[in-house]
Amino acid sequence: MFDSKNPQRTPISELGEFGLIDHLVKNAKSKLPNTALAMGDDAGLIDHGAYFTAITTDLLVEGVHFDLSYMPLKHLGYKSVVVNLSDIYAMNGTAEHITVGIAVSNRFPVEALEEIYEGIHLACERYNVDLIGGDTTASTSGLMISITATGRVEKAKATKRSGAKDNDLIVISGDVGGAYMGLQILEREKQVFIENPDMQPELGGHEYILERQLKPEARKDIVDLLHNLQVQPTSMIDISDGLSSEILHLSKASNHQFNVYENKIPIDPSIYTLCEEFNLNTTTVGLNGGEDYELLFTISIEDHDKIKANPHLSVIGYVKEGSGANLITRDDKVVELKAQGFKHHE
Amino acid sequence: MFDSKNPQRTPISELGEFGLIDHLVKNAKSKLPNTALAMGDDAGLIDHGAYFTAITTDLLVEGVHFDLSYMPLKHLGYKSVVVNLSDIYAMNGTAEHITVGIAVSNRFPVEALEEIYEGIHLACERYNVDLIGGDTTASTSGLMISITATGRVEKAKATKRSGAKDNDLIVISGDVGGAYMGLQILEREKQVFIENPDMQPELGGHEYILERQLKPEARKDIVDLLHNLQVQPTSMIDISDGLSSEILHLSKASNHQFNVYENKIPIDPSIYTLCEEFNLNTTTVGLNGGEDYELLFTISIEDHDKIKANPHLSVIGYVKEGSGANLITRDDKVVELKAQGFKHHE
Repeated sequence: MFDSKNPQRTPISELGEFGLIDHLVKNAKSKLPNTALAMGDDAGLIDHGAYFTAITTDLLVEGVHFDLSYMPLKHLGYKSVVVNLSDIYAMNGTAEHITVGIAVSNRFPVEALEEIYEGIHLACERYNVDLIGGDTTASTSGLMISITATGRVEKAKATKRSGAKDNDLIVISGDVGGAYMGLQILEREKQVFIENPDMQPELGGHEYILERQLKPEARKDIVDLLHNLQVQPTSMIDISDGLSSEILHLSKASNHQFNVYENKIPIDPSIYTLCEEFNLNTTTVGLNGGEDYELLFTISIEDHDKIKANPHLSVIGYVKEGSGANLITRDDKVVELKAQGFKHHE
Repeated sequence: MFDSKNPQRTPISELGEFGLIDHLVKNAKSKLPNTALAMGDDAGLIDHGAYFTAITTDLLVEGVHFDLSYMPLKHLGYKSVVVNLSDIYAMNGTAEHITVGIAVSNRFPVEALEEIYEGIHLACERYNVDLIGGDTTASTSGLMISITATGRVEKAKATKRSGAKDNDLIVISGDVGGAYMGLQILEREKQVFIENPDMQPELGGHEYILERQLKPEARKDIVDLLHNLQVQPTSMIDISDGLSSEILHLSKASNHQFNVYENKIPIDPSIYTLCEEFNLNTTTVGLNGGEDYELLFTISIEDHDKIKANPHLSVIGYVKEGSGANLITRDDKVVELKAQGFKHHE
């Protein structure tokens, strides 16, 4: 009805997700004195005097981030909270409050929303977070959940993506690749089910990786642990898009080179067998799998003794002056790391 | 693939929007000492010592809240910010920060997102708000914008929906019904366009109401005005769903009876002629139109002198002990007000 004033049409895929966001917010200029950090990190920071308030928003869209043929609604509600809390923990903060926006088509009954909210309440309970607002609205198709999390960050503890320094160690909590392999199992069983709806899905023996995909946890415990160990990370990010991609984010924001040893990347033993079954390279899965919601951070080398014996933490590499990131392979070759998202059979 | 544990299917329409939200959050229990207000108001309140931080989330969904055949993308970006800021002003606060979540299908080019962000930046500029975070993601169909706004509320000034008292006056800023009539014009011209795409839309002479619909403003100026006049509202809400619905929200939250004079409802003169053309009742449009983003509030009768000469404010009724809400018609009949959303030809 109205002509667009701009007839040019650049496909979004041309810029990629991160390029797109950078491009769109390049005109955003912070004006307020209490805006301590805007855009480009896991959360924005507002200066509230004695401390910062961190704030972050993440969307989960049906058909893009989840598939309701295997994602139970209660788990979906739980996960949608957890992925947001994870961003607050990545600032080295304490998540405190969330708001929930849900757009839902009329193919969903009230009971479906009840199940989602059961998961939301459970996550709030488990992470000691209060739900304080939100919006529920119709959608023309599908389900969309938008959650905003806020939290408190002590000023002296606030950890951004920038801040990694020469000789710092690169540390990761837990293990990676599990959520991605859980997804492979679910996708495989979905195909079986589509071909023969009488078949029961074979999920036995894959409990760990299925839980990593369907009901991930955010590493509040690691933030507490670092506090107790008196370790102040120099930079930090949570692993949502994949280890490789997050390493490059830290490298770029910190303006330093990140070097990661292939044989140090923590991968659950069950994943090795499974990767063979799926004809996947374990390192590729570990680097690019995504959705593990572990914390990736750097620490001063002086703090090494405090963390080295800890079973929850793995030192996977070191920081140097320079730029970009390298993988040091098992046979001591140095390969440049790229954030390619996941590609099969590499 | 997995059976739902709950085979019951209650249509969402059975509960209605407000009933649904009440139902879903009834299990939310606030645990944190700094949660000052959770759910059921225009915004939640977090206690930050010297002041509250207000936080609110609103979604705008294509095909539900906007129609891109007549909503320019820049206006959409602007409006999506404004409707959220309006909720912060309704707490008698100052909006300060927003996060923006956008889910968009690949039918939209980068240039479309640029136009939306142009509107977002313009609103941030105009209302002195900083954009500090967000998420851009794919959707399988259509466009969805989720915005969270936060702001600062002085503790002594914080105004909830509850708090209206016996003999308080009911006050409204600006006028109502314009946004709804703007929508009628746009829908009419869309039909003309569908039938004959060579016809140019006839929008001349309707600038005021079209702007009310396409590019509404939030009443930051009224919050400032009340501060300057030293008027502390006893209860407040913004008018998003319609005057009638909002009056009932204040009445219910304050547990008092609200009485509104039909002939005091502020309606722009242009709307009278237009209502005749569309065969609509002006009062019904004023009461149920929605999307005007004016502020509706109550004040102590002692403050009447401070506001009575102000051209931006209209006293439309009074509060009494009791419950529910009444319309006192032009011929002095008392009719119970119901939140029916909009119905034609009443």
